[in-house]
Amino acid sequence: MKKLIAEFIGTLWLVLGGCGSAVLAAAYPDLGIGFLGVALAFGLTVLTMVYAIGHISGCHLNPAVSIGLWAGGRFDKKELLPYIAAQVLGGITGAGILYLIASGKPGFEMGGFAANGYAEHSPGGYSMLAALVSEIVMTFMFLLIILGATHSKAPKGLAGLAIGLGLTLIHLISIPVTNTSVNPARSTSQAFFVGDWAIDQLWLFWLAPIVGAILAGIIYKYMSPETEE
Amino acid sequence: MKKLIAEFIGTLWLVLGGCGSAVLAAAYPDLGIGFLGVALAFGLTVLTMVYAIGHISGCHLNPAVSIGLWAGGRFDKKELLPYIAAQVLGGITGAGILYLIASGKPGFEMGGFAANGYAEHSPGGYSMLAALVSEIVMTFMFLLIILGATHSKAPKGLAGLAIGLGLTLIHLISIPVTNTSVNPARSTSQAFFVGDWAIDQLWLFWLAPIVGAILAGIIYKYMSPETEE
Amino acid sequence: MKKLIAEFIGTLWLVLGGCGSAVLAAAYPDLGIGFLGVALAFGLTVLTMVYAIGHISGCHLNPAVSIGLWAGGRFDKKELLPYIAAQVLGGITGAGILYLIASGKPGFEMGGFAANGYAEHSPGGYSMLAALVSEIVMTFMFLLIILGATHSKAPKGLAGLAIGLGLTLIHLISIPVTNTSVNPARSTSQAFFVGDWAIDQLWLFWLAPIVGAILAGIIYKYMSPETEE
Amino acid sequence: MKKLIAEFIGTLWLVLGGCGSAVLAAAYPDLGIGFLGVALAFGLTVLTMVYAIGHISGCHLNPAVSIGLWAGGRFDKKELLPYIAAQVLGGITGAGILYLIASGKPGFEMGGFAANGYAEHSPGGYSMLAALVSEIVMTFMFLLIILGATHSKAPKGLAGLAIGLGLTLIHLISIPVTNTSVNPARSTSQAFFVGDWAIDQLWLFWLAPIVGAILAGIIYKYMSPETEE
Repeated sequence: MKKLIAEFIGTLWLVLGGCGSAVLAAAYPDLGIGFLGVALAFGLTVLTMVYAIGHISGCHLNPAVSIGLWAGGRFDKKELLPYIAAQVLGGITGAGILYLIASGKPGFEMGGFAANGYAEHSPGGYSMLAALVSEIVMTFMFLLIILGATHSKAPKGLAGLAIGLGLTLIHLISIPVTNTSVNPARSTSQAFFVGDWAIDQLWLFWLAPIVGAILAGIIYKYMSPETEE
Repeated sequence: MKKLIAEFIGTLWLVLGGCGSAVLAAAYPDLGIGFLGVALAFGLTVLTMVYAIGHISGCHLNPAVSIGLWAGGRFDKKELLPYIAAQVLGGITGAGILYLIASGKPGFEMGGFAANGYAEHSPGGYSMLAALVSEIVMTFMFLLIILGATHSKAPKGLAGLAIGLGLTLIHLISIPVTNTSVNPARSTSQAFFVGDWAIDQLWLFWLAPIVGAILAGIIYKYMSPETEE
Repeated sequence: MKKLIAEFIGTLWLVLGGCGSAVLAAAYPDLGIGFLGVALAFGLTVLTMVYAIGHISGCHLNPAVSIGLWAGGRFDKKELLPYIAAQVLGGITGAGILYLIASGKPGFEMGGFAANGYAEHSPGGYSMLAALVSEIVMTFMFLLIILGATHSKAPKGLAGLAIGLGLTLIHLISIPVTNTSVNPARSTSQAFFVGDWAIDQLWLFWLAPIVGAILAGIIYKYMSPETEE
Repeated sequence: MKKLIAEFIGTLWLVLGGCGSAVLAAAYPDLGIGFLGVALAFGLTVLTMVYAIGHISGCHLNPAVSIGLWAGGRFDKKELLPYIAAQVLGGITGAGILYLIASGKPGFEMGGFAANGYAEHSPGGYSMLAALVSEIVMTFMFLLIILGATHSKAPKGLAGLAIGLGLTLIHLISIPVTNTSVNPARSTSQAFFVGDWAIDQLWLFWLAPIVGAILAGIIYKYMSPETEE
């Protein structure tokens, strides 16, 4: 139960912090933080939570991470569903708090919130194929970083830094393509409020991250040193 | 006494560095650091002080942090008042040094300095309710990061990184809402020089951070592993 | 074999992440990440891979690094060619994935991709001599950071941070001069797709990094403490 | 002798990296790194060198640091002059390499290079008094961070992170005031090439950092825990 509370709060923070920085601060006139600031914010939500709750729940905050860790032999199948449920609920709650704050600005319109999309809903107009490739490859690399940095032979204590900044890096590359998901709970939380096209396109942001994560779990098992944690 | 000097200097640095970067460098023509740079500066004041004085005073630099640590069972009630006094005095001194430097520019006008505000004094015009929610939630998460990252089961030595970058993250999200406080000493230091509306609105920047911090102390006790430091 | 897979994937990530952030996100209207974001992305590809695969292959991801480590007495000559082959193939594969994503945007034109160049192909129009000096000196310092931070007397576990952020720093300085290489595999991966002038100028981005790396290997041996890892 | 070579190369890197990012990349049209990028670059020169050469020379790279460490009882008086000479020569050599690269751009004019200045040579037009206060206080805090983070009770291995990012923070605050020195070797290296007013104003960038550093050495001795390294 403590684990699920930790995953709930952690994913709430990922969505409130990452999507919140995008909605509230990215395009602020002249002084806004831009995609660079949003990339940093997403990464820091994970970095801060790894150190804060990593020793409670492992700090997945992401169904694709839980599934990839299971594929890599690091996570028990029977914990998968409760973790994913806690993550999705946490994400939606985070999006709700964000909505409460954002709508406190006179003239607020939700528009696309920070939803993920492809084709006409991609920030840069990238095709569905480009979005699919991007989300699969980015999640693949994200899981490889997670599996490698938490391996018993990796330097102790620094996994949170590598994983958090890895998510920053992924956003630095791919926000223009899909607004960057690599996390079905994050995508769902925004689609829940935006509805419409964001719901229609949500399948890609479950499918692609999960495919990428499973591939990483399988390939990492092959390439990793024998001793595992 | 060494502890109080450390808290005094540390809070001085938080205000001089964080508010200083906002007043002196954020809106510099063309090359200015923007909200992203200010967010980084606030976080780095805390990061640097954790490593510099953490082993002397614990490096709170913030009445809400001291109160949240007390609520979480990590700080002695009888040290609360001296710590808070040292923090407020340090903050005001930091603001004084900043005033001395900033006023050395021909044509300087103080305006809002780097004061916190809501409604017509929110940078983005956010309502009092949005400000209240934002400050409570942000301080809640800040304390959760602090309580978690300094727990005996968290990786050793990296708490300063997580806590400092956590404060950066909080600024990346919420500068447009309230100019970001989560720290009554920081807010007081600016209101002291701005007076007027900044004094009138100061209550929110004591109330909300303290409420968020106490909630975090209580909830973290429930969700944390049993062994505590 | 595991080592070569690790080098292949790692260099793929360096090119996809570093060059990808430049091609996809640097010049996005209003919210783009600019050279600062690209510099951060390049550094984070290396930082994340050091923690993820450093314990597998040593995480060179760069022919100049492998050669510099050999010159410094830290890497076996008979592993040089396989490592370099894996790096070049990984880089080209990363560039191929980037091409696949980037070309999913209607109206995409490859232009210079993220190729390195001098004179009329230098971003800021810098001469061949300036490019040569810049690439030699930057690679020299990069190897010095690598050799020093992985020395047995350096703090344990933090080499990845210093090396990754060292590459960020190198990009902060020298993107305007050559688009920054310090890595023949990265340069080759882009020239492979751009052809033409990028192939004609490729010699400099093999020669200069290798010269800088060998000099660093030799000089570091002289200035380092006796105990080596 | 190894120590002096290390200080020479390290200070060369501080000037080439920090001032180089300012001269070459800060104001690049549209994509330039701005003061935020320059602040990061200065900090990363120190961060990378602490991990690369900290175990050789202690990595001062700055006469004010050597003097402040001496005032704090951490550095031997008879090493002061050789260290300072190596730092100044390294800085001038770094500036020379920067000049060689920068002048490879057609139409290059040196202008103020990255020299420090006050009054009409302050980037933001700040008065001599403001410059004096800023340089004294910033160097004071820089030394406090150095003395604290390298104390035997501080977390092991993370001093380089705190000190490097501390220098970044100092630049985030004070570039508009004096172009930020806190380092007489850095100021001298630029004044050597700019001559004229930069030589006339150089006294302030020796006096103020040294005063700030000595004050920090004295005060830290009083406030630090008894056990010292």
